[in-house]
Amino acid sequence: MILTVTLNVALDVTYAVDALVPGEAHRVRSVTERPGGKGLNVARVLGILGEPVVATGFAGGAAGRRVQELLTVPHAFAEIGAESRRTVVVSDGASGTGFWEPGPVVTGAEWEGFVARYTGLVSAARVVVLSGSLPGGVPEDAYATLIRIAEEHGVPSILDSSRAALVKGLAAGPAVAKPNAEELAELAPGLGVVEAARAAGSGVVFASRGADGMLAVTGDRAWRAVPPSLSGNPTGAGDAGVAAIARGLAYQEKWSLILQDAVALSAAAVLAPEAGAVALPDYERIRRAVTVEEL
Amino acid sequence: MILTVTLNVALDVTYAVDALVPGEAHRVRSVTERPGGKGLNVARVLGILGEPVVATGFAGGAAGRRVQELLTVPHAFAEIGAESRRTVVVSDGASGTGFWEPGPVVTGAEWEGFVARYTGLVSAARVVVLSGSLPGGVPEDAYATLIRIAEEHGVPSILDSSRAALVKGLAAGPAVAKPNAEELAELAPGLGVVEAARAAGSGVVFASRGADGMLAVTGDRAWRAVPPSLSGNPTGAGDAGVAAIARGLAYQEKWSLILQDAVALSAAAVLAPEAGAVALPDYERIRRAVTVEEL
Repeated sequence: MILTVTLNVALDVTYAVDALVPGEAHRVRSVTERPGGKGLNVARVLGILGEPVVATGFAGGAAGRRVQELLTVPHAFAEIGAESRRTVVVSDGASGTGFWEPGPVVTGAEWEGFVARYTGLVSAARVVVLSGSLPGGVPEDAYATLIRIAEEHGVPSILDSSRAALVKGLAAGPAVAKPNAEELAELAPGLGVVEAARAAGSGVVFASRGADGMLAVTGDRAWRAVPPSLSGNPTGAGDAGVAAIARGLAYQEKWSLILQDAVALSAAAVLAPEAGAVALPDYERIRRAVTVEEL
Repeated sequence: MILTVTLNVALDVTYAVDALVPGEAHRVRSVTERPGGKGLNVARVLGILGEPVVATGFAGGAAGRRVQELLTVPHAFAEIGAESRRTVVVSDGASGTGFWEPGPVVTGAEWEGFVARYTGLVSAARVVVLSGSLPGGVPEDAYATLIRIAEEHGVPSILDSSRAALVKGLAAGPAVAKPNAEELAELAPGLGVVEAARAAGSGVVFASRGADGMLAVTGDRAWRAVPPSLSGNPTGAGDAGVAAIARGLAYQEKWSLILQDAVALSAAAVLAPEAGAVALPDYERIRRAVTVEEL
């Protein structure tokens, strides 16, 4: 199975209102809840693809329980005393106004307990996916620790994070990193994308460039793939790409084919109404329209 | 003990943000949660007064569990399958913007289960307090049913609701009703407050008039009490008044003394920073400043 790690899960809540007026009281027409956090989007897309997957991470309080209730893939979360974060988006049809809760603070003992649980799960995994931000209290080099444990078990890791969590995680040399182009530029200022990717310290880098598709860069080769022009909801599209990379890694496919898959699944996710979803017919159709070019 | 019934509990959540800008994403600085719903405010004030109290009603889902975790008074809620409502107030310091979730729909079987549980609790109660709105799925005459069951056990009821739930509840003749002046005017258009109170169908009516205090109206007598001028947070002040009425009824105090207490506790609640709280020294001090006048 593929193990997805989401240390900072969220319960994503959408409130539909007629019109948002600051200072007023609003009757919420409908409430929609879904599990949030990049790693859970990856897990759900893998579930849709029929891949065996287990989601782990931290979950706490009422929001953490609700996330687990709503998850449609197998999961094994570590309970924490603090409350997992919610994100509330107030939608009036035309636009959304978001409120991001600060999220929990994890204790040292909870982090150690998670590492023990993760180590047990890793031994049954073919690939580990590490996604998103770190909650408070977790060491900045948390991803490096998890990548090294996976490596000790011969399991490749994919790292999709940003800022300090990305930089410190890259120090452990994950099999794949998936920064976006801006993150890569911050990591190695002044270099081109391919050179910056090779300097990042990861085995292979998949650099996402939004509507311009994705690059895959190994030590000596590089490919570019561009999706057909699409409009939709880009939230979670990158996570669908990571799901494709994880599956490709599990089956040891060629990098150029993994790149084609990742771009096609990302594009199919843009067409889906919500993050963490893809319609397989969209994916199949788009995959045929994605061309991969070696640089 | 005094039994408080809150059929439509809420989890009241406050998000502190720097400034609310529609269409933007906001980092929430802090999240505050408290149990909400008028009956829970009554229960908490009774707890502060040292009165034995049990809170009951419906609680469902994560919000319902959280309400029960946060409650500081004894409680015996009936679980429902649907999720209890949350109220989210986004506060930027200067003003609050509220989002009221629609709340759960209770099934017929859940309502019948609650009536059975309530009947068991009533037999140990000295007074029953019925507060607030009815959730979806509960019959409009729910309060009438609960008032009649209490009466069969020789337990007096206090009804504090509005619109159809108030009108249908009054048909069962509660010992006390506590409408505000506008609700009373809607019940009996064209009559003065005292005449409207006598027409309402309740044994005694306590009619609240905001900063102008309260009237108590029996079949043949009527009193008015006015608090000293105060500024603060009026949310929950009426519920503190109901707590005073419930305590007075439990000890069979005189109506004029109950009225004095109710006005003083309401005014003390205005001074407290949050609904469902009073500082007892405020109450003691204000009580001496409230004068009761017979009409």
